[in-house]
Amino acid sequence: MRILVANVNTTTSMTDAIAQQARAVANPGTEIIPITPAFGAESIEGNYESYVAAVAVMETIRAYDGEFDAIIQAGYGEHGREGLQELFDVPVVDITEAAAATALFVGHRYSVVTTLDRAVPMIEDRLKLAGLSDRLASVHASGLAVLELERDPEAAIQAIVTKALHAVEVDRAEAICLGCGGMAGLTSRVVAQTGVPVIDGVSAAVKLAEGLVAQNLSTSKARMFSQPREKRFVNWPPAL
Amino acid sequence: MRILVANVNTTTSMTDAIAQQARAVANPGTEIIPITPAFGAESIEGNYESYVAAVAVMETIRAYDGEFDAIIQAGYGEHGREGLQELFDVPVVDITEAAAATALFVGHRYSVVTTLDRAVPMIEDRLKLAGLSDRLASVHASGLAVLELERDPEAAIQAIVTKALHAVEVDRAEAICLGCGGMAGLTSRVVAQTGVPVIDGVSAAVKLAEGLVAQNLSTSKARMFSQPREKRFVNWPPAL
Amino acid sequence: MRILVANVNTTTSMTDAIAQQARAVANPGTEIIPITPAFGAESIEGNYESYVAAVAVMETIRAYDGEFDAIIQAGYGEHGREGLQELFDVPVVDITEAAAATALFVGHRYSVVTTLDRAVPMIEDRLKLAGLSDRLASVHASGLAVLELERDPEAAIQAIVTKALHAVEVDRAEAICLGCGGMAGLTSRVVAQTGVPVIDGVSAAVKLAEGLVAQNLSTSKARMFSQPREKRFVNWPPAL
Amino acid sequence: MRILVANVNTTTSMTDAIAQQARAVANPGTEIIPITPAFGAESIEGNYESYVAAVAVMETIRAYDGEFDAIIQAGYGEHGREGLQELFDVPVVDITEAAAATALFVGHRYSVVTTLDRAVPMIEDRLKLAGLSDRLASVHASGLAVLELERDPEAAIQAIVTKALHAVEVDRAEAICLGCGGMAGLTSRVVAQTGVPVIDGVSAAVKLAEGLVAQNLSTSKARMFSQPREKRFVNWPPAL
Amino acid sequence: MRILVANVNTTTSMTDAIAQQARAVANPGTEIIPITPAFGAESIEGNYESYVAAVAVMETIRAYDGEFDAIIQAGYGEHGREGLQELFDVPVVDITEAAAATALFVGHRYSVVTTLDRAVPMIEDRLKLAGLSDRLASVHASGLAVLELERDPEAAIQAIVTKALHAVEVDRAEAICLGCGGMAGLTSRVVAQTGVPVIDGVSAAVKLAEGLVAQNLSTSKARMFSQPREKRFVNWPPAL
Amino acid sequence: MRILVANVNTTTSMTDAIAQQARAVANPGTEIIPITPAFGAESIEGNYESYVAAVAVMETIRAYDGEFDAIIQAGYGEHGREGLQELFDVPVVDITEAAAATALFVGHRYSVVTTLDRAVPMIEDRLKLAGLSDRLASVHASGLAVLELERDPEAAIQAIVTKALHAVEVDRAEAICLGCGGMAGLTSRVVAQTGVPVIDGVSAAVKLAEGLVAQNLSTSKARMFSQPREKRFVNWPPAL
Repeated sequence: MRILVANVNTTTSMTDAIAQQARAVANPGTEIIPITPAFGAESIEGNYESYVAAVAVMETIRAYDGEFDAIIQAGYGEHGREGLQELFDVPVVDITEAAAATALFVGHRYSVVTTLDRAVPMIEDRLKLAGLSDRLASVHASGLAVLELERDPEAAIQAIVTKALHAVEVDRAEAICLGCGGMAGLTSRVVAQTGVPVIDGVSAAVKLAEGLVAQNLSTSKARMFSQPREKRFVNWPPAL
Repeated sequence: MRILVANVNTTTSMTDAIAQQARAVANPGTEIIPITPAFGAESIEGNYESYVAAVAVMETIRAYDGEFDAIIQAGYGEHGREGLQELFDVPVVDITEAAAATALFVGHRYSVVTTLDRAVPMIEDRLKLAGLSDRLASVHASGLAVLELERDPEAAIQAIVTKALHAVEVDRAEAICLGCGGMAGLTSRVVAQTGVPVIDGVSAAVKLAEGLVAQNLSTSKARMFSQPREKRFVNWPPAL
Repeated sequence: MRILVANVNTTTSMTDAIAQQARAVANPGTEIIPITPAFGAESIEGNYESYVAAVAVMETIRAYDGEFDAIIQAGYGEHGREGLQELFDVPVVDITEAAAATALFVGHRYSVVTTLDRAVPMIEDRLKLAGLSDRLASVHASGLAVLELERDPEAAIQAIVTKALHAVEVDRAEAICLGCGGMAGLTSRVVAQTGVPVIDGVSAAVKLAEGLVAQNLSTSKARMFSQPREKRFVNWPPAL
Repeated sequence: MRILVANVNTTTSMTDAIAQQARAVANPGTEIIPITPAFGAESIEGNYESYVAAVAVMETIRAYDGEFDAIIQAGYGEHGREGLQELFDVPVVDITEAAAATALFVGHRYSVVTTLDRAVPMIEDRLKLAGLSDRLASVHASGLAVLELERDPEAAIQAIVTKALHAVEVDRAEAICLGCGGMAGLTSRVVAQTGVPVIDGVSAAVKLAEGLVAQNLSTSKARMFSQPREKRFVNWPPAL
Repeated sequence: MRILVANVNTTTSMTDAIAQQARAVANPGTEIIPITPAFGAESIEGNYESYVAAVAVMETIRAYDGEFDAIIQAGYGEHGREGLQELFDVPVVDITEAAAATALFVGHRYSVVTTLDRAVPMIEDRLKLAGLSDRLASVHASGLAVLELERDPEAAIQAIVTKALHAVEVDRAEAICLGCGGMAGLTSRVVAQTGVPVIDGVSAAVKLAEGLVAQNLSTSKARMFSQPREKRFVNWPPAL
Repeated sequence: MRILVANVNTTTSMTDAIAQQARAVANPGTEIIPITPAFGAESIEGNYESYVAAVAVMETIRAYDGEFDAIIQAGYGEHGREGLQELFDVPVVDITEAAAATALFVGHRYSVVTTLDRAVPMIEDRLKLAGLSDRLASVHASGLAVLELERDPEAAIQAIVTKALHAVEVDRAEAICLGCGGMAGLTSRVVAQTGVPVIDGVSAAVKLAEGLVAQNLSTSKARMFSQPREKRFVNWPPAL
């Protein structure tokens, strides 16, 4: 089985980290194929960048010359998943939704701890649209930007743990989703300090994608995600 | 007051029709500045095209060399409004949301009649996110594609009226939103055959945008729509 | 265009203040016609008074001998809007709903800052019924009664700003509605101290009403707001 | 125990019928005191009449010279209950809400069958505000006006049964509320033809009111329903 | 009228206390028949025990050799009510739901104060399923286990009052439900210290059950609660 | 990895069929251990039987003498999952929820096709509590009892396909969950006749359970599912 794991930003070290995490949980027969978008921003921390990332991931995968069985969109709270579902027949798994769906099976309510305050409503909106927010207790920002996570993992862990404990004790969450593709390596540390299940979106997405493929499930083409209609484009796609 | 009215597709005759409708309802002192995106599809009828349109509208307006007081995104059920709100301080009004907010003031429940079946869940999702779906009775597809509206307006009117009457009688809608930027000219005909208020999104958006500007309101920069952070982009934006 | 702007209480200085605010944002061709109800309480701060105000506004406008194109009900969180919509064909705009609908276009979530604690659930109920509460972050009471606003505007501003800042920082509102017809003049002061868009309901209602009239929209008579049926009344209406 | 049972219209034969039904289910020690409003319409079939009825019931009970332990507002889908709760300390039970709360205990979902189409959204709104609409399957109109029920009970029963069966079979209701104070006597006939529990609002309200009094419960004065504040009224209340 | 009042645990002193409270509010003609389950745990403080209690109550009542007109399940937040409704035709009233439905008639929002933290989500879930959580302000745990209530009533009252005051002042509840069958005797003390209506579930359930019987209402057999189908059981029921 | 797959009824041929389906999708290293409850009904088609099944599954697994890494509860719309989560630390996956969570990843909305009409509200309730009903389009009954599925699979397929097509075309579902543990073998036939993804709950649960174990996730013991407290039981558990 071959799974495309698409980073949403153009920082290849983050693509590498995501791929490493994906491989760590993948089944023996699963090949993880990392994708870095051919254009876009070095990190995605807002709607403008996220919309650019959405089309960048779509075009980069359209231009990908190889076979694959599933796509993982490895950005937290980002736009674009519906477009991938239209363009391709294989299952598309967004890590925001994968983490949330996984959390529902291990706790009564869950919270998300993400990077910056401005990402909070974006994540809330994605979970609302995905139909996964009914048992969402809260979304909290650690205050650390995406690229700071790599630079100072200790500070990141402490900031995340502080918010996670607040979520468990005050908001009554029973499981925590780490709300950034770049937080993948921090899971065990946060478990140790909070005592509740901690879900990494990339790991959750890999297992869900493998499961969908094993069940021979592909994206429904009944209506919302039916193949795009034939039409003329002007100045698009850009040369990659 | 200068209002940018952005068509979401690259068909200039549709840009013209939208601008004409906008001017028909605008105040005397309002200048309507039509925008056709510099890249993208000839019509938007799905998520892939809509995401491309979202960034196309953003980049085209970023490249626009002139002053303006508000932006109207004249696509029904399309992605991208949040990105425009981040990039610019002036109010941004999406016609899907403008029509719905207007409908709330003239009827107890409202329905939307749009083009193709695949647009139905897209419109539902946008209204849900906008917090405007609580009194939404239904969204129906007339079955006519965007560009067919221009070609055979009579057939379009009949298809729309049929669905609108069903919405009023069965779904208990009390007002109808015409769910496509290209349906602007059809309002009075549908009113005549249904007897309920019929809202055209472009008109609704123009009046709302004028009202926001008159109240000196601009997009909140408190959190979700704060200015994008400084960062490096790779291969972006495309040369326009 | 002639717009009736109905104060809900019998304090004419408040009618004057509301009319002044309405005129300040109205288009040049709009005539603002202030209405003071012919009976009722000097200020409306509870359900009993609000129900009396509801029928007082209805009867006063029924007795009004002149033409008009729209009605604004200038009370915050008050009963009665549906009755006006039944009695008249012209659009009826409630300032509670006008402020909320306007707030949706300038921020992701909004809060209301009103007068007394007892008004909080009344406003929540009106917004819930209006289908506008999905992105409502919170309703807060400043603790000042309606008529105190006129007496000590400085104290009012400080009390409002304190609650507004709490709404922005803790409840994550991105825009603030001032929840009392008598708070109209305070908008710019609250903007200066909070940095977020602040919406005055009277202003919002004027622009919405003008917009509805410009679009030739009137109240749907399909069901909920159809003309009252012919019937006998006992001892009603009172002589005005 | 003395319970005021307030008809909302001025038709005394309907007051009598309501009182008769109330007495039929009341405990031996319960005295039913019928109230006909001192002003208002002969039947309530819309918002205007309902708002007038709301204040008429309030003023009539304020003017009532006697002791009482509870108030029943015997109109279906009408305005005004919150005002009564403010004015008086004793429990106030609205028959719309009483029927719905009762239905929840005998079926998984319930429907309401009412008189005219225009009453449907009014009832839906009241149940939504009351927090009792989560398991509401549907509200249907029989098409018969309030006063027609008295004139042709056989036709009324057939029209109600038709809608009730639709509610059970199509909308999956498991219990039916008869949505008009004047339908009280029809319960057993509708049970016989539908096979599901049928709730009459007046009966439900009497038993709930008796229960509240027996538990020494009175209306909370914590916030929403605290006693009206002292203030001056102009031309109000009318001489009764 | 004969009402079975089923304790959910096997502690007979608690059965006695519940029966005493039931009798204190019952009508003169009502016979309260206490039921202690034939198997199960001494107190119910979690899902495992609650599921055992659910079937224990069902089997104990199935084995009960006598006539009865209604069943009260006197556990707070427990499983099993739907099973009783299937097995028997008489009305079944759960005290969690009875308290909530009663609270809706005396305050705009209500809170529940229960025993242990782990009971909070159980109660929330039951109220959600019952369609009674729309105006639920909060559920709080006093921190006292079920059997501690008997041992130290003074401590219990203080812990409950502290949480009740928080519910009223911070969560804006206007009425309080005591969330444990064993809290029945504490009502007046909590009223005295909070000033808001306090509802005991057992009392509320008795009055609701009496009311349902008086209205000749029984459980709908239309669908969800239709009589169990004939089938073979293995090793069940246990010998009691 | 060892996964207990618990049938909820006592029909061992159904346990065998479930185990066969589970093994068909399990990873090579996964051992499927089928469990038939030690007591209970031959098929579960209602709340009474379901509650008995809930405790039967709990007690049977408590008595199971072996190690295991996850539990699957293979009944559709049944009670009891929360009890298993309390009793054990390993992940517990209910097939109703597994199918729904899986459906969310392959279609915009999903429907469930189950056996009897009486199961419909049970499934709706479970999905509501699980926080997975926001994108649920409908639940339909094929009209076939659980044990009839084995006897006449062709009739079952036709009945299921008829309802599935209705769900896709009228309710706008884009994916279908087969709502009975005994429908596992029918998936490909229903796909062939509907053209949309069809999810079997047992398969979905196996892949989710494997994924949870691979991520080292176990049930949160923070609150709702914390280990049962020590306490005395009377006449329980039964000798197995």
